[in-house]
Amino acid sequence: MDQATPDLDRVVKDIAEDMRGRTDRGEVATYIPELARVDPRAFGIAVIDAEGRVFAGGDSETPFSIQSISKVFTLTLALGKIGDRLWRRVGREPSGSPFNSIVQLEYEKGRPRNPFINAGAIAVTDAILSGHQPREALGDILRFMQFVADDSSITIDEAVAASEQRTGFRNVALANYMKSFDVLENPVPYTLGVYFHHCAIAMSCRQLAMAGRFLAHLGRNPSTGFSVVQPERARRINAVMLMCGHYDGSGEFAYRVGLPGKSGVGGGILAIAPGKASIAVWSPGLDANGNSHLGRIALEQLTRRMGWSVFGA
Amino acid sequence: MDQATPDLDRVVKDIAEDMRGRTDRGEVATYIPELARVDPRAFGIAVIDAEGRVFAGGDSETPFSIQSISKVFTLTLALGKIGDRLWRRVGREPSGSPFNSIVQLEYEKGRPRNPFINAGAIAVTDAILSGHQPREALGDILRFMQFVADDSSITIDEAVAASEQRTGFRNVALANYMKSFDVLENPVPYTLGVYFHHCAIAMSCRQLAMAGRFLAHLGRNPSTGFSVVQPERARRINAVMLMCGHYDGSGEFAYRVGLPGKSGVGGGILAIAPGKASIAVWSPGLDANGNSHLGRIALEQLTRRMGWSVFGA
Amino acid sequence: MDQATPDLDRVVKDIAEDMRGRTDRGEVATYIPELARVDPRAFGIAVIDAEGRVFAGGDSETPFSIQSISKVFTLTLALGKIGDRLWRRVGREPSGSPFNSIVQLEYEKGRPRNPFINAGAIAVTDAILSGHQPREALGDILRFMQFVADDSSITIDEAVAASEQRTGFRNVALANYMKSFDVLENPVPYTLGVYFHHCAIAMSCRQLAMAGRFLAHLGRNPSTGFSVVQPERARRINAVMLMCGHYDGSGEFAYRVGLPGKSGVGGGILAIAPGKASIAVWSPGLDANGNSHLGRIALEQLTRRMGWSVFGA
Amino acid sequence: MDQATPDLDRVVKDIAEDMRGRTDRGEVATYIPELARVDPRAFGIAVIDAEGRVFAGGDSETPFSIQSISKVFTLTLALGKIGDRLWRRVGREPSGSPFNSIVQLEYEKGRPRNPFINAGAIAVTDAILSGHQPREALGDILRFMQFVADDSSITIDEAVAASEQRTGFRNVALANYMKSFDVLENPVPYTLGVYFHHCAIAMSCRQLAMAGRFLAHLGRNPSTGFSVVQPERARRINAVMLMCGHYDGSGEFAYRVGLPGKSGVGGGILAIAPGKASIAVWSPGLDANGNSHLGRIALEQLTRRMGWSVFGA
Repeated sequence: MDQATPDLDRVVKDIAEDMRGRTDRGEVATYIPELARVDPRAFGIAVIDAEGRVFAGGDSETPFSIQSISKVFTLTLALGKIGDRLWRRVGREPSGSPFNSIVQLEYEKGRPRNPFINAGAIAVTDAILSGHQPREALGDILRFMQFVADDSSITIDEAVAASEQRTGFRNVALANYMKSFDVLENPVPYTLGVYFHHCAIAMSCRQLAMAGRFLAHLGRNPSTGFSVVQPERARRINAVMLMCGHYDGSGEFAYRVGLPGKSGVGGGILAIAPGKASIAVWSPGLDANGNSHLGRIALEQLTRRMGWSVFGA
Repeated sequence: MDQATPDLDRVVKDIAEDMRGRTDRGEVATYIPELARVDPRAFGIAVIDAEGRVFAGGDSETPFSIQSISKVFTLTLALGKIGDRLWRRVGREPSGSPFNSIVQLEYEKGRPRNPFINAGAIAVTDAILSGHQPREALGDILRFMQFVADDSSITIDEAVAASEQRTGFRNVALANYMKSFDVLENPVPYTLGVYFHHCAIAMSCRQLAMAGRFLAHLGRNPSTGFSVVQPERARRINAVMLMCGHYDGSGEFAYRVGLPGKSGVGGGILAIAPGKASIAVWSPGLDANGNSHLGRIALEQLTRRMGWSVFGA
Repeated sequence: MDQATPDLDRVVKDIAEDMRGRTDRGEVATYIPELARVDPRAFGIAVIDAEGRVFAGGDSETPFSIQSISKVFTLTLALGKIGDRLWRRVGREPSGSPFNSIVQLEYEKGRPRNPFINAGAIAVTDAILSGHQPREALGDILRFMQFVADDSSITIDEAVAASEQRTGFRNVALANYMKSFDVLENPVPYTLGVYFHHCAIAMSCRQLAMAGRFLAHLGRNPSTGFSVVQPERARRINAVMLMCGHYDGSGEFAYRVGLPGKSGVGGGILAIAPGKASIAVWSPGLDANGNSHLGRIALEQLTRRMGWSVFGA
Repeated sequence: MDQATPDLDRVVKDIAEDMRGRTDRGEVATYIPELARVDPRAFGIAVIDAEGRVFAGGDSETPFSIQSISKVFTLTLALGKIGDRLWRRVGREPSGSPFNSIVQLEYEKGRPRNPFINAGAIAVTDAILSGHQPREALGDILRFMQFVADDSSITIDEAVAASEQRTGFRNVALANYMKSFDVLENPVPYTLGVYFHHCAIAMSCRQLAMAGRFLAHLGRNPSTGFSVVQPERARRINAVMLMCGHYDGSGEFAYRVGLPGKSGVGGGILAIAPGKASIAVWSPGLDANGNSHLGRIALEQLTRRMGWSVFGA
């Protein structure tokens, strides 16, 4: 590994350089003004290896809206709270449909296929809420994020949360639909309030890569020494990320990148190289499946050059 | 690794012993008499490590109908013949539906989601056939299987093939449906003839584990030294196996076992621990998704005890 | 026709008598307490012929919750307000799915198939609302109902409306889903408020049959002489009723009864024998499609004995 | 009625004249050469009133491929052979999907929604075949058609049948799919052979209008005096025609024309004005739902001017 470290520095710099010049950058999400006005030329990358060294390039310190990447952490938190009972309310199979599809919910009686499509993440949020006030649940989530990232400066972008809340009719539909099947137990506005807010957490690539370290190292952050989850649970969360982390582009991501990962509509991707590194990339332009276009290409280069694919090195 | 080798021997023996006594064995497939009359108490396992050592237990030498496991090898062969053009005809995303669903085909204009659902495997078979006579194409497939397994004794069970051909109305429907979208280029009976026959290949666990070795070792069989595919292609086939190898139970398999794998309705599963081992298990009883019930449990035990999950060790 | 009038009296009495003794009465809707506590033994029928004579039997004077039957009148009112532009927002094809399905909405970009499934009726309500306050729109609807029934005593059952509003998560989902496609133009709670209230109008069979007379007589109530709609529009509303008035049991109703009709989950059915009669029946027990079980049987007897089927007499 | 007769003559002539000059004629079906080469400028109409008088215009004597219109007669024949047991194999609800959709078949276990979508008509054909040789069954169907049309010169266009058989992969898929659910009892090639041939029957508008007379007159052809079916069955077949006769344009046809009708991809439509007339129109250009574009417009004019809508006159 020692001799790989200088390589990693070089590789990360090369990737940042390559991405800077690209013109085909995908389409920035425009459904809320806060996302639409992000600079489409932004690109950031941060890789933290097993020893805790940070390799970063581009806009790696710029906070962006992590959006659905927060679902990895709410899943972790919910499993911590109610354990495997969570899986009664949400499955862990790929959906074979877009992130906001409601069709599957009808065929499967309101039970979402996995915790990373919107419906599933709303169900997970409902499990975290579990009778408490939205403010408390949201505090729990934010503190958990600060804990795993070892960074108390992480905050929620209230303007983003407010915009989502104003325009998120599709998510309101999904939540009420599940409520009609008794899949949600809290008042829908409570659950959605927490959901919209945790999706509006803002983090930089460096912060996000830090937050993912426990998944790369069997549930334990090697720097802080804190154990977040048991090794088996870390492996299983990685498995769900690989299977379902990129909506209907999950197969493509596994095929090209070969790492567990989770994307957000803000253009971020968290990827995990088990035993080796936690990685965050960010570029706001999205591909047709709603995943960061350059982010995926950057990860493909990184994993190929470092030999980090879980499918053979 | 050296000190693990004795463990592996122990682990395989323990698993075979454990499985022998289990009473909940799932349901044996009964849609053709040849499968229905297989002994439900059968269980076999064979693991071949990087050094080529074989660790086996139970009925590891009994040939069984590999059925859909053959799709891993026809995919490899088709990629070898026409390269990435294959992906124009078939996708590589999980389907989110049962193995024989035709719904997705209608919504996606006859293009199957991946090469491991029936429709996708028929499309792959059609690409191998590619204007040749069925007999030739089938010869190619069988010889390829003998080559990767380094075993010229592997044969097709003609009784199984004939039964499938007599009763496979759903597959006839899938093939004609794709034909109506010009996804197949050969006469439907030709393509299906080859398809039904390669699904009827009979192999033992040991033979199957041998055949999977190139996938565990970057495309090259370490014993024969023959290179079957380039390293990148081996990784990518593993990725497709992980995402799509167990139909609508793929997420469950990734979650519990954590290895790329492919199941067949005959009760076999081929699983790949990249860099470490090629594994075959067999037990005829199936779970609700059509995957071997004990086979999956055995693999879960193996991967946990050996620390072979691709999601963290 | 003269010699038929005595027959009609006899037929209606026979039917009321027959229905009284039946034991297989279907299942009363229980999703809100107000419907659940209705006496399952209730049965009412009222037929008003072209001359305005009323033939009634059973509980023909008992008010019941007309529920979805109100959709016939909101459709009429909305067409009066915005004309055929209404059809840009809602189709007029049978849905091939249950009354509250959301699947079709996803495949057809939020545009409901017809004005009688829930989604379609919500879209029609939204067109009536059209920027006004809910209270005004609801007043318009109630006054329109009183006008066509020539009966100012008709009211809304506020307890039913309140219950629906508390538990109607599926309808909230449908409305927000359409809102996400910009099919609704008013705030969702406004539109749904009006929708839940007009479904909670309470009427007796006699009142309902009176309200339907304009549809039986080319748009004009023969007693009051008031023209409600042009003849062509009356015919077309009848056509939509025949095609879509009984959800996924519309084909069955056409096959057995042979009249345009609209059912409600409260157990009422309004049926129109063009040129001959307006008919209302009521019995709270529902069949599997959510249509009144005895109501349909009563109409089948009536239409057969009177020779009123539109498909040949 | 007497004073209407001269009107009908005028109306039919006006319609034929109007249609001759229209330039927007829809798209002629091109999936087989025999249909593709039909003159798109053709238009024919024939109306036969209760007294048996024929009013015709345009190319009313030119034979065309009746295609799916044959399904009305095979339904009648199958009901004659096995009675209401037929409805165990096929439903009578509108499908809410295109004529050749396979999606519904999967959700409903291989049972087609109605006898007029392709799958349903194949199931009906299978019921007629019922263990006999295809040649016999086809003879039965052709003789039945000659009987109801009172015209022994009606034949099958063998070139059309052969083309369909060569290219009808979608229908082969539908049939095999149903076979996999045991909805068909004969060998698939037998059933499809008969199906493709009865769809290839060629008739002129005059012949077709004659064949439909029993449906306009309670099951009895007023000229020949032969009773084909009981009155109730005639009414019910009309009901199924109205609900399902124009695929996913059935609602539109009911809304605009207001008569039971059945269209074919050859451009023909048979429409029934119960008690008044049997009507056939033909123009090869189709609308987006696969129904004759000018045919529907012609029927809309006819029914409006004659006051023949079943929804009020």
